[in-house]
Amino acid sequence: MTVETVAVVSAGDMGHAVGAVLANSGLEVITALDGRSRRTVELAAKAGMVDVGDADTLVARAGILLSIIPPDQAVGFADRISAAVISAGADLVFVDCNAISPDTTGKLGAIVTASGARFVDAGIVGGPPKVGGKGPRFYASGEHADAFAVLADHGLDVRVIDGAVGQASALKMCYAAITKGAALLGTGALVTAGVMGVGDLLLAELRSSQAAMLGWLEGRMPSMPPKVYRWVGEMEEIAATYEAAGLTPDFHLGAAAMCRFIESSPLGKEVPEKRTMGTTLEGVIEHLAEFATAPEARRSPAAAKGR
Amino acid sequence: MTVETVAVVSAGDMGHAVGAVLANSGLEVITALDGRSRRTVELAAKAGMVDVGDADTLVARAGILLSIIPPDQAVGFADRISAAVISAGADLVFVDCNAISPDTTGKLGAIVTASGARFVDAGIVGGPPKVGGKGPRFYASGEHADAFAVLADHGLDVRVIDGAVGQASALKMCYAAITKGAALLGTGALVTAGVMGVGDLLLAELRSSQAAMLGWLEGRMPSMPPKVYRWVGEMEEIAATYEAAGLTPDFHLGAAAMCRFIESSPLGKEVPEKRTMGTTLEGVIEHLAEFATAPEARRSPAAAKGR
Repeated sequence: MTVETVAVVSAGDMGHAVGAVLANSGLEVITALDGRSRRTVELAAKAGMVDVGDADTLVARAGILLSIIPPDQAVGFADRISAAVISAGADLVFVDCNAISPDTTGKLGAIVTASGARFVDAGIVGGPPKVGGKGPRFYASGEHADAFAVLADHGLDVRVIDGAVGQASALKMCYAAITKGAALLGTGALVTAGVMGVGDLLLAELRSSQAAMLGWLEGRMPSMPPKVYRWVGEMEEIAATYEAAGLTPDFHLGAAAMCRFIESSPLGKEVPEKRTMGTTLEGVIEHLAEFATAPEARRSPAAAKGR
Repeated sequence: MTVETVAVVSAGDMGHAVGAVLANSGLEVITALDGRSRRTVELAAKAGMVDVGDADTLVARAGILLSIIPPDQAVGFADRISAAVISAGADLVFVDCNAISPDTTGKLGAIVTASGARFVDAGIVGGPPKVGGKGPRFYASGEHADAFAVLADHGLDVRVIDGAVGQASALKMCYAAITKGAALLGTGALVTAGVMGVGDLLLAELRSSQAAMLGWLEGRMPSMPPKVYRWVGEMEEIAATYEAAGLTPDFHLGAAAMCRFIESSPLGKEVPEKRTMGTTLEGVIEHLAEFATAPEARRSPAAAKGR
C-alpha cells in the first residue's frame, strides 16, 4: 500500500513534530485548524502542515489519519470523524495514538469500525520526534496495524505488536504509569518537604543516597509544568487501566490531582516556548511550595487535592 | 552525658540490627520480649540484646529508649511507656524512630512529655545497619535531640536537625514517599502490564529507554514482598503528611492498597530468611500478575483495591 496524504490531528506539541517528520519525507500532511488556538496554527505552519479546515475535508483527502489529542477529547473526535467517514463513504485508516485505557480504546474502536474505517490502536512512547533524529516508538496493535506501519518508510518508528486492539494502549498506559507517575509522585514529596521546611535536607539526603533517582527527577521536573494540563485525562485513563487489572486506581487519581494542582499554579500557566519560572528542580519546588501554602490554592479543593 | 544502658523496642528487622551495633560498642542493650514472636526472640538473641520482660523494667533500667516499631503501634507503645515513666518517676530520653507523620509525632510527643520523659523526634533513613558497616541516618529534632546524639559515639549515624519536633519525621516521610512510593507505583505498572499481556514488551521498552529506572526497580522489588505488611501504616502516615501540606493524599493511599495486595498474595507470606518465590523482578511480576487474576484476590476488595 502506498500513501500520499496523511492527516494529523492536532498540530500540538507532539502532533506538529510528527507532522514535520512526515512532511519532510515527501508526504502531504494535512490538518484541520478551524477553531484552534493561534499557537497551534503557528506550530502547524512551522511543520509544513496544510490546513484543510474541517473533518469532512480531512476524511475526503487522507488515506491515513492520526489522532493525537488530549485523552479526554479522543472519543468525541472519533465520533466526528466516523460521521464524516459514513457521509463520504470513505476508505480511511484511523490510527488512535492517544493516551487512553484499553477499555476506552475498545469503545472508540467500535465506533470507528462501525463507520467502515479501518481502526488501529497505537500508543506513542517517548517524546516528540525531531526531523532526522531518533523519534518515539509508535506501538500498534489490531488487525489493521500493518496499514499504519507503512509510515515506517516515512520516518516514524512504528512497531507492530502481535495482538488485538487494546494491547498497544495497555503498553502505553503502563509505561506512562511509571514515567509520568513517578515524576508527579516525586514532585509531591519534594513540595511537601518544601512546605514542611525540610526541602534542603531532603535534597541533600537524596543527593547522597539516591543520586540516580534525584538526577532522573532533575531531568523531568522543569519541563513538566506547562504540559501537565494535558496529563490529567491520561492519569485518569491509567487509573482505569490499573483497576481493570484488579489493582488500586489511587496512585494515578493522586497523579491527576497533582496535575491539577500544578496546572492551577502560576507555573502551570506558562507555555513551553516562553518559560521564565521553574526552569530547575529547585525552582519548581520553590514555586509550588509557595503556591501550596497560598490562600488561592486552599480556596480550590479541586486544585489542592480534589478528584 | 554518658549512657550505659539503651532500650530498643522492638528487635525486628531494623531494631535488632540497631541493637547489635549498640551492643557491639559496649553498651548494655535491653528489650522487652513478653508476647513477641519466636523470630523476634531469635533476632534479639543474635544481636546480643538482653530481654528484661516488660515496659516497667525497661523504663527502670534504661537511660535512652528507642521506639522502632510498625507505625500503627507507635502511639499505643508511647502510651504504655509513659505510664511506666509516671509510676517510676523515671528520667528517660524517649526517642521515637517510627515512620509517622509530623502530626502524629506531635501528638505522641505530647503524651511522652506529659509523663516527664524527654522526647526526641527521630526518622531513620536507609536500611538496617551492619556492625562495622555504614548504617542508616538517624535524623533527630526537638529540644532534647542532643541527648540522643550521644549514641553517635556508639556506632549510630545521628544527625541533629535544628528544628522542632516534627521536622525529623517530615524528612523521613518525604524520603520514603519517593523511595517506597516509587517502588510500589512501579510494581503496580509492571503487574498491570503482566495482567494485560504486555509485560515482556514493557520490560524491553524500559530496558531500552529507561534503563536507570528499571535498574532501580530491579534492585528494590525482590526484597519488598516480605516487608510490605509493615509499610501499610507508613504509607497512610505519608498520605496524611502530603494532605497536611495541602497536596493530594491519594498517591500513598494507593501505595497502602498496593501493600495490602502484595501482603495478601503468597509472596507476602514469606519471611526474609526463607525466600523461595519472587527473588527477581520478573519473578515478583509473574507471581503478582497471577495473583491479581486469581479468584482469591477478586474476593477480597480490601486486598485488591480497597482502603
